[in-house]
Amino acid sequence: MKLHPDLPIGVFDSGVGGLTVVRALLEELPAEQLIYLGDTARVPYGTRSPQTVIRYSRNAARFLLSRGVKMILVACNTASATALPVLLQELPTPVLGAVEPGAHAAVAATRSGTIGVIGTLATIRSGAYAAALAARRPDVKVAAVACPLFVPLVEEGWFGDEEPVADLVARRYLGELHRQAPDLDTLVLGCTHYPLLRRVLARVAADLWPHPVCLVDSAEAMARAARAELERLGLLRAVQKDPGRRRLVDRLRCFVTDEARVLDIGARFLGRDLGALETVDL
Amino acid sequence: MKLHPDLPIGVFDSGVGGLTVVRALLEELPAEQLIYLGDTARVPYGTRSPQTVIRYSRNAARFLLSRGVKMILVACNTASATALPVLLQELPTPVLGAVEPGAHAAVAATRSGTIGVIGTLATIRSGAYAAALAARRPDVKVAAVACPLFVPLVEEGWFGDEEPVADLVARRYLGELHRQAPDLDTLVLGCTHYPLLRRVLARVAADLWPHPVCLVDSAEAMARAARAELERLGLLRAVQKDPGRRRLVDRLRCFVTDEARVLDIGARFLGRDLGALETVDL
Repeated sequence: MKLHPDLPIGVFDSGVGGLTVVRALLEELPAEQLIYLGDTARVPYGTRSPQTVIRYSRNAARFLLSRGVKMILVACNTASATALPVLLQELPTPVLGAVEPGAHAAVAATRSGTIGVIGTLATIRSGAYAAALAARRPDVKVAAVACPLFVPLVEEGWFGDEEPVADLVARRYLGELHRQAPDLDTLVLGCTHYPLLRRVLARVAADLWPHPVCLVDSAEAMARAARAELERLGLLRAVQKDPGRRRLVDRLRCFVTDEARVLDIGARFLGRDLGALETVDL
Repeated sequence: MKLHPDLPIGVFDSGVGGLTVVRALLEELPAEQLIYLGDTARVPYGTRSPQTVIRYSRNAARFLLSRGVKMILVACNTASATALPVLLQELPTPVLGAVEPGAHAAVAATRSGTIGVIGTLATIRSGAYAAALAARRPDVKVAAVACPLFVPLVEEGWFGDEEPVADLVARRYLGELHRQAPDLDTLVLGCTHYPLLRRVLARVAADLWPHPVCLVDSAEAMARAARAELERLGLLRAVQKDPGRRRLVDRLRCFVTDEARVLDIGARFLGRDLGALETVDL
């Protein structure tokens, strides 16, 4: 398979949360075209077994390959934490997950050396963040708490600044993290849904910890890592001069496995309307 | 296909919530053997489109047929509300959903003639309960509110009596129902997960409405309907004299599409340990 800079980048996620990664990519890489696949007929991955997550991730990656992409970004933290070793071995394109870029940004941010990770059950159980953090800085201390209610809260739209349910749920999960690690100063948002809770999380963290806590958004870290990897491989696309190429409709093609709720929820993650959707069966 | 009283009853659900129906069936029908299928690799159905729910329900029903069942119970309210007409037309066995028995029990319970229904997004959007209630009592008034956070709350185990998050979430959803229908006196728990929130719901309802509100559990209504239908068809199994036949391991066989979290969460719904699980790919 011959890779070429003009080919699109493929991004997949269990649902629409990965659109936070698309949003960061559109800003970080203005010349690139993107193909997004959200496996919305089988979301969430975060509560499933590793075997099932690997099977679903293979299906998603093969679909993107069939569309002729030059790189695959695994936007879903659960799929990254669970299926990345298998995908790296099997796929003919470069593959980039969410965990390594997030761990890289967290190690750069911490001063106390204690880092918190929040994510889905599957992500936390995999231990992938703890391993990636320790590989970069062996003396790091890691505290990790699974937060299964955050995804449905965001999908219900209850993530606003004055949202009492989000506040109460965040106090419970972050309170557990505080008990485990009173000296943490960096918190990795290890799920694509969590950036939408950023303000609630920041407020609750400010109440719990006496010192500042840096929130690391793995979506932004992934976009920077994708740029670095494309440059390294000589696959970065040259900036287009034709301004027509910069319209969203020309830069992003969205596929989902189930259309229900995608247009309204997806817009929250992308920060603008998604435009056309195509439904596929994996 | 020749049906016989000694064949087992098949029950399917999107996940483990349908074990509340199994629990009711074990009590209501002590001589029957049950085969349960929980589609835990694709749960929840409640946020998906009708097309996807129909496709998944067909897969599940065909699996049960391949095991030689005499009747299929669609324990999942979402699948009942969406896919039952298709299943009734396609399957060679009797099929029973959750909506008709629940509507029957609600109409029998109401005095004011105003009934509330809570369920998943897909169940509420289908309008199936409103149609089934109106078919039984044309002058009934129906208020319906989707409660997407209840399922993840129950799966997280946050449904205890003193649970502040469950209380807050219930006040929000039932508060909306109270605004729509201040005179309702009957509330259908239109999802197999909701009976575990019964105490929280009862307390919140007692705070909101000045008169008593009857909570209708569709799992119990389904078990009674299954008995009536088996009797009508001459398919009720004779009571076994061998006491060994009454052990759970001889009466219930459980299949899931993903094992993650099933044993611990499933026990909450069944009210006892599940025993052995078999994993299948639909």
